[in-house]
Amino acid sequence: MLLKTIQVATPSAQYPVLIGPGILPTLYPRLRKLSKAKLVVITSPNIWTLWSKEFLASFPPQDQPAILTLPPGEKHKRLPAIESLAEQLAQQGADRDTLLIAFGGGVLGDITGFLAAIYMRGIPFVQVPTTLLAQVDSSVGGKTGVNLAAGKNLLGSFHQPRAVFADTDLLRTLPRPELFAGLQESIKAAIIRDPRFFTFLERNREKIQAASGEPDPATLARIVATSVQIKADVVAADEHEQNLRMILNFGHTIGHAIEAATNYKQLLHGEAIAWGMIAALHVALARQTITPDQFARMANLILAFAPLPTFKAKAQQLVALTAADKKNRSGRRAFILPTAIGKAEVVHTITDEELLTATQRMLDDMQSSKP
Amino acid sequence: MLLKTIQVATPSAQYPVLIGPGILPTLYPRLRKLSKAKLVVITSPNIWTLWSKEFLASFPPQDQPAILTLPPGEKHKRLPAIESLAEQLAQQGADRDTLLIAFGGGVLGDITGFLAAIYMRGIPFVQVPTTLLAQVDSSVGGKTGVNLAAGKNLLGSFHQPRAVFADTDLLRTLPRPELFAGLQESIKAAIIRDPRFFTFLERNREKIQAASGEPDPATLARIVATSVQIKADVVAADEHEQNLRMILNFGHTIGHAIEAATNYKQLLHGEAIAWGMIAALHVALARQTITPDQFARMANLILAFAPLPTFKAKAQQLVALTAADKKNRSGRRAFILPTAIGKAEVVHTITDEELLTATQRMLDDMQSSKP
Repeated sequence: MLLKTIQVATPSAQYPVLIGPGILPTLYPRLRKLSKAKLVVITSPNIWTLWSKEFLASFPPQDQPAILTLPPGEKHKRLPAIESLAEQLAQQGADRDTLLIAFGGGVLGDITGFLAAIYMRGIPFVQVPTTLLAQVDSSVGGKTGVNLAAGKNLLGSFHQPRAVFADTDLLRTLPRPELFAGLQESIKAAIIRDPRFFTFLERNREKIQAASGEPDPATLARIVATSVQIKADVVAADEHEQNLRMILNFGHTIGHAIEAATNYKQLLHGEAIAWGMIAALHVALARQTITPDQFARMANLILAFAPLPTFKAKAQQLVALTAADKKNRSGRRAFILPTAIGKAEVVHTITDEELLTATQRMLDDMQSSKP
Repeated sequence: MLLKTIQVATPSAQYPVLIGPGILPTLYPRLRKLSKAKLVVITSPNIWTLWSKEFLASFPPQDQPAILTLPPGEKHKRLPAIESLAEQLAQQGADRDTLLIAFGGGVLGDITGFLAAIYMRGIPFVQVPTTLLAQVDSSVGGKTGVNLAAGKNLLGSFHQPRAVFADTDLLRTLPRPELFAGLQESIKAAIIRDPRFFTFLERNREKIQAASGEPDPATLARIVATSVQIKADVVAADEHEQNLRMILNFGHTIGHAIEAATNYKQLLHGEAIAWGMIAALHVALARQTITPDQFARMANLILAFAPLPTFKAKAQQLVALTAADKKNRSGRRAFILPTAIGKAEVVHTITDEELLTATQRMLDDMQSSKP
C-alpha cells in the first residue's frame, strides 16, 4: 500500500503529514532529514511497551534518542506535567535545536506540542500519533495546550509540528472504543465540510465496524487521509482560529461541557463530541437549517458506532458549563451550526434557551437509545 | 514636559511605547482606545498600595477594572503562579478579547505577558512598568516567561504587548538600589549599540546619582526613551532572537549564572548583569577586541552606580552554570563580545578556559572594589 502525503501550509509553517502503514520502522532517516540535533521522544509507558521495538528499529546503536515518559490520561494534561518534563529536558541538556517527538495519543501530543511551544520560547517537534483520534484530528493544525480546573485546553499555544507521521499500523492495537471515538472526529469533518466523505463513511461503516477482527486497513487509511485533508484546508485558511477554523469545533460546545460534567473520566473525548454533535444537530433542526431527513442521516451515522457510552447530567448544568467556552468573545457565544450535510457556519445568535432545548432533546435521545 | 512615543515594529506586531511623566492618571481613555472588552489588572500588593489611586483616577465608577495580585519576587516567577492567575481569569469570565494590564516590575511583566501568551492560546495585554529595569528593558520586545528550577526564563513565549505606558513618575518611589540596577540595562544598551548614549551616561552620572533627593526627571526620561529606542531597533530587526537580538544579552551569560549561584535572592537582576558585563569585558580585553582604555571607561561606568553588591561564588561554578544558557545551539556557546564602545558581536568560539579566566578577573575586581 502506498503512503499518502498531505501538505499543511499555514502562514507560520509548512509541513507534511505522512499517512499509511509501515512508517514506524523507517522513522530514523525521516527524523534526521528534519534535524541533525538531539532527539527526545516523549511517550507513555503503555505505548512504549507495545511499540518501542518498531519505533527504534531504524535507529543506529550510536544514535539512540532520549526517552521521557508521561503517564496516560487526561488528568495529567496539566501544567505540573509540563514543568516536570521541562526540568527533565533541561537536565538532559536540551537546547533550542533539540527536536521533540510526541509518540502517543491526543493528550500526549497536546502536552508535547505545548512543551515544545514554550521550552526556551519554542523548539521544533514532530507528531507520531498512535490513536485514530490523534491521527485524524489532534496531531494536525498546531493546537497545543493543557487543561485548567476551570476548563479544557484553557492554556496553550499555536505551534505547528515540523512533520506528522501517522502510521496506520499503530491502530491495530487500539482498543475498539478508542477507534470508534476517533471516528467521531472524522464524522465531524465530513459533516462540516465534505458531503462526499460523509457518503463514503455511510457506505463503508460495516468495513470499519467489522464485529470480529480488525477494521479494513485500506478503508481506515482513506479515512485518516481524507480527515487530515479537510483539516489541512481549514487550518491553512485560518491558522489562529479567527473565524473559519471554529467550524472544527462542531459538537464541541456541549461536548466539552459533557467532559467537564463527567470530570473527564467517564467518556472518551470523541464519545463526548458525538453527543455534543447530536445536541448541535437538534439546534440546527429546530432552526430548520437542516431538514429532518438530513438530521436523521447525520444522527444515524454518529450513533452507528455503538455502543456510545451514556452519562448522567442535567441539560441546565451542561449549558451553564458552556459559559467558559474559548470561542466566546466578549460574552457572545460562538456556535457551529450545520446548514447541510457537508456544510456548517459559525453563528453568534444561539440563545441559552435554544441550547437548553436541544441539549434536553439529546439527553432524551440518549435515554431512548439505551439498551 | 512632553511625552515621547517610540514605535516598536516587529513582523508580528506594531505598538507604541509612551514615555514620560503623568501617564498613569490618564490611562483609562488610552486603554479603551485599545479595547472595548473586559480589563484585568495584574499587579503586586505593594505597588497597588502605593499607586492604585493614581492608576484608577481616570476610570469611571461604572467601568472599574478587575484587579488580581501576585506577591512580588523572582521566587513566584514559576508555573504555579501562572496556573493560579489563569484559574482566577477563568472564574472572572475572561475570554479571548479580555485585555490584561501588567502593572509592576520586570518579574510581574514577564509573568503577565506569559499568561497573556498562553491563556486561551493568546489574549492581548499591555505593560505599565513601574521599575526602571522594566521601563528601559523588560516591558519592550515581547519576551515573556517563567523560571524552572534548572534555570531562568526556560519556559516562555514571544508575545508582544499592544502598548507600553512607561510613566517616569513611578520611578519616584523606586528604592535607590532598584534604580541603579535598572540603569545597568541602559548601560548595556549603550555599550552594545550607541556610543553617543554611552557618552551621555558618562557625562550625566551625577544627575542620576544625586546623593540626596531624586534623580533629575528629564535625564531619567531621556535615559528611558533612548534605551527603549535601542531595544526597539534591535527587536524590529530580529523579533525571535535568531541572531542580532542576542546582543541584548550582553553580560547575561555570567549574569544569569550569578543569579543561579545566589539562588536569585541576593542580587537584583541588574546587579548580577553588571558583574556579568565586567566578566564579558574581561573576555573582550583578553581577546583585544577592545583596548584597555575602552575597558576602563566601560567598567568605570558600570561600577559608578555604587555600591554594587558583592556575592560569593567560585569562577568554575559560574562557568558550569552557563551550560544551560538558552542561547546555546547544539551545545555551542553563544557569547556577546563588545568590539568597541557602542558595538558588540555574537561569537561562538569562546572557550570554557577564556570564560573561566575572565570570570576570575571579575571576581578579583569585586574583591578589590570592596570597601
